[in-house]
Amino acid sequence: MRLNLEECWARLRTSTHGVLGTVHAERGVDAVPVVFAVDGEVLVVPVDTVKPKASTRLQRLANVERDPRCVMLVDHYDDDWSQLWWVRVHATATVVDGTNDALERFAAYREPGSVVQSIVLTPTEVTGWSASG
Amino acid sequence: MRLNLEECWARLRTSTHGVLGTVHAERGVDAVPVVFAVDGEVLVVPVDTVKPKASTRLQRLANVERDPRCVMLVDHYDDDWSQLWWVRVHATATVVDGTNDALERFAAYREPGSVVQSIVLTPTEVTGWSASG
Repeated sequence: MRLNLEECWARLRTSTHGVLGTVHAERGVDAVPVVFAVDGEVLVVPVDTVKPKASTRLQRLANVERDPRCVMLVDHYDDDWSQLWWVRVHATATVVDGTNDALERFAAYREPGSVVQSIVLTPTEVTGWSASG
Repeated sequence: MRLNLEECWARLRTSTHGVLGTVHAERGVDAVPVVFAVDGEVLVVPVDTVKPKASTRLQRLANVERDPRCVMLVDHYDDDWSQLWWVRVHATATVVDGTNDALERFAAYREPGSVVQSIVLTPTEVTGWSASG
């Protein structure tokens, strides 16, 4: 039921979205839904000007600049619990200016200026699990 | 685009699953997919004997016993980004023995002994957002 590393990466490469967890000084932990792309052995999360945001000041950036430890969970839910699977990436986050070619998998991000920064997640641990083995 | 509190709770009550983020001493943050039920003004996450687990020792329990601050993200993803929405609950977690009647929404949890403990999340902040307003 544990997925091996190769299978984890295969599922990450074909996934488009996950939940990014970061450390918050007072609240302890934050979680936001994000889209991402795999670039070699890192995950890239766009800071974009495309998707509407609840706030222009992104707490996820403040969090990782203060403490770069984070986690990405890619989760497949199904009411049939035999179909459940997930892949989890513990990582160190670095914020860089500009976009990353891997993000061009999303049509909206091929537009110049659509991605202003990228959060690059360098994995420290990759694990995965599937109910169906 | 911000969802009001009433709308957040309405969506929580009709949702069945989310991602639970907890504080981990070394990794900073953990995230696990969970099912849950709303019981009045708290969220209840089962510790069950039904769904296959990657481990019998649940890190989420160790985490909240050490630091009860946690977050639940209920996220609706869609390739059509105008359909995105999420509800986020920052909370304090308490672990109690046994099940909670609210968990009987899941057929599998009507079986005696199927839920051995419940993680009760008492919200400190509930926020939500929808792309379509």
